[in-house]
Amino acid sequence: MLHPSGLITLLTDFGERDWFVASMKGVILTINPQATIVDLNHQIPSHAIEEGAYVLKSCYRYFPEGTIHLAVVDPGVGSRRRPLIVKSSRYFFVAPDNGLLTHIFAQEQDVEVREIENKQYYLESEGRTFDGRDLFAPAAAWLTRRHAFSSYGQVCGEYSAFPIAVPRWEQMALVGEVEYVDRFGNLITNLTTEHVKEVQEVAKRLHPLIRIAGHLIDGLVGSYAEGEADSPHALINSDGQLEIFFKQARASTRLKIGAHEAVTLS
Amino acid sequence: MLHPSGLITLLTDFGERDWFVASMKGVILTINPQATIVDLNHQIPSHAIEEGAYVLKSCYRYFPEGTIHLAVVDPGVGSRRRPLIVKSSRYFFVAPDNGLLTHIFAQEQDVEVREIENKQYYLESEGRTFDGRDLFAPAAAWLTRRHAFSSYGQVCGEYSAFPIAVPRWEQMALVGEVEYVDRFGNLITNLTTEHVKEVQEVAKRLHPLIRIAGHLIDGLVGSYAEGEADSPHALINSDGQLEIFFKQARASTRLKIGAHEAVTLS
Amino acid sequence: MLHPSGLITLLTDFGERDWFVASMKGVILTINPQATIVDLNHQIPSHAIEEGAYVLKSCYRYFPEGTIHLAVVDPGVGSRRRPLIVKSSRYFFVAPDNGLLTHIFAQEQDVEVREIENKQYYLESEGRTFDGRDLFAPAAAWLTRRHAFSSYGQVCGEYSAFPIAVPRWEQMALVGEVEYVDRFGNLITNLTTEHVKEVQEVAKRLHPLIRIAGHLIDGLVGSYAEGEADSPHALINSDGQLEIFFKQARASTRLKIGAHEAVTLS
Repeated sequence: MLHPSGLITLLTDFGERDWFVASMKGVILTINPQATIVDLNHQIPSHAIEEGAYVLKSCYRYFPEGTIHLAVVDPGVGSRRRPLIVKSSRYFFVAPDNGLLTHIFAQEQDVEVREIENKQYYLESEGRTFDGRDLFAPAAAWLTRRHAFSSYGQVCGEYSAFPIAVPRWEQMALVGEVEYVDRFGNLITNLTTEHVKEVQEVAKRLHPLIRIAGHLIDGLVGSYAEGEADSPHALINSDGQLEIFFKQARASTRLKIGAHEAVTLS
Repeated sequence: MLHPSGLITLLTDFGERDWFVASMKGVILTINPQATIVDLNHQIPSHAIEEGAYVLKSCYRYFPEGTIHLAVVDPGVGSRRRPLIVKSSRYFFVAPDNGLLTHIFAQEQDVEVREIENKQYYLESEGRTFDGRDLFAPAAAWLTRRHAFSSYGQVCGEYSAFPIAVPRWEQMALVGEVEYVDRFGNLITNLTTEHVKEVQEVAKRLHPLIRIAGHLIDGLVGSYAEGEADSPHALINSDGQLEIFFKQARASTRLKIGAHEAVTLS
Repeated sequence: MLHPSGLITLLTDFGERDWFVASMKGVILTINPQATIVDLNHQIPSHAIEEGAYVLKSCYRYFPEGTIHLAVVDPGVGSRRRPLIVKSSRYFFVAPDNGLLTHIFAQEQDVEVREIENKQYYLESEGRTFDGRDLFAPAAAWLTRRHAFSSYGQVCGEYSAFPIAVPRWEQMALVGEVEYVDRFGNLITNLTTEHVKEVQEVAKRLHPLIRIAGHLIDGLVGSYAEGEADSPHALINSDGQLEIFFKQARASTRLKIGAHEAVTLS
């Protein structure tokens, strides 16, 4: 049976120029001074649930089993959207019910979802504008004190998730899209090693052809250090995803594109 | 009697692109490798003492009793401004004597203020440009090692504080101001739940009327999710303060206003 | 004999808007849940090896002996550049072999450099784009678990370093340069207390004359609070380096200069 460790990660759209993240940490450490807190990311654009979900998906599985991932991108704070506490075979998650856990629901096994109803886990406050501090942080902190998962509230049969874009076949080519633009301007796509193999078998070609924004990329390279500086290149990144880059330049700027741009593999 | 815990928070205007905050953490961990350090905020604009004081006020009380709050916004570094160490009934504070602790002096009980005179708490360095590392960080760290509060230096009878803006009555209306613009562009005012009740009794109205920048807001809503998108709304936030917002937009941008703008309640 | 402590610092050019730093922390805490992680800096401009090296130099020595400094500014990720693990008389370092440790090699004693060859310290992944997570983070984390330094790989006889600019005499004057522009716009030079003394002896003057960008500064002041607001001033900073500043303004903006600008002392 999975036990919560004392490790809590924080992902929010609160930025680092106010006191919001600090207040959450103070609340956690008041409930459990032994808790270890790691910042996942606080630079999610305001209210950008899909981007928050993508960042969470990209790193949550590198943490030890029993980690509690606390995620707050919450445009509906104070409204009737439900606060959730979630258990999978490996992790715990605390987040609003607004799609922020979409990829978790898709990737984790044995998921159990409960609504945080038990008022003993709420901090009292006058208004309801800061559930990150008054509800989500205490819920996560009490879990590290081994309060029973079932004590939080009832099991939820339904919860929010947005549709995840999946590559599709169109006339002998697999059409995917850019999922994320990283700090270096690299374009991470939803095409993977498996898609590349699939296309190689169908097309009977050794090198995949990649089309993006009017450019044709012939084959994959092995690292960012390869290839000429003035054209886009593609590689399989450390997560097994097809990534488009320029050598020491920003592909997003050079190609003038961003998330959701089509990428074709043939 | 209050004992310092091993928890130190850091608030500075040092930003995160140099090595200033890192050096302070290194000094603290060299003196006490068991110390826990939490970043409150390092994005205070350079030399903005009032903004630093406001951020500190807004989150310090969410930390466990015995926490040491170390705050360095210090345009007078190396000059004769005194370095202070402060004890209240619940917390410790280490900061320059320049107004940064204004709200702490106003809100905390049983405040005792001492100058950090004892050179054994100073790190030796050639110049005097980085008291954050050479004076304030070691002072806080030695406190976690249980060095006596009285060993730091003499009690100060006088210390700096700036005037705090307080709402005032003008012709049947209570005039407050915007105290802070947060990351979301929300306008946090110095009007509180108590002011709203006071006005309701005087004006014998159920809904308070709020005037800001030529706009009239009729009554309060319960959350950011309520109201139409194209006009400003008001609510009581989780700290019991009146806050002006736009639904999923920046009120500061829409209304083109910032801190110190007048807000009228009637 | 130096033992690695459980303290790991992180310096990268990964920024804080993706999940790269978080993944590294997750990997470290999976290998050693008791490790303490401190962020040195993640705002190094992309691929700026010299700037990363300078930031590391400026703060590494404030950490306790046995600290493991993990630095990843790595434009050559996935190419043949070697991953290094380094031991000095006081610290450990983990970094790519690209010059990032230039100042460490110049300042530390009893330096032993090894290539990280042992595949048991690698995390398996499909591509080779994220050695920060898949190679450097695990290498540092296993060191905190007391895996032998010699078990990582062979001793390297040669490793990369870039030339460090050293002040030189030109016609009775010592010519140095701006090494770094900090958050406050202050200009930190490679001229030190020793250089000032040297010039004073040669020139038989009490006050050194400093020339920068067409401005003449007569003598040193003791703190940022001294001097008039409208002209540049100079002082010896807390690291013993000559620094040019404007009182509560950005010298870099006022003088329109940056790193590598000449500074003359006579």
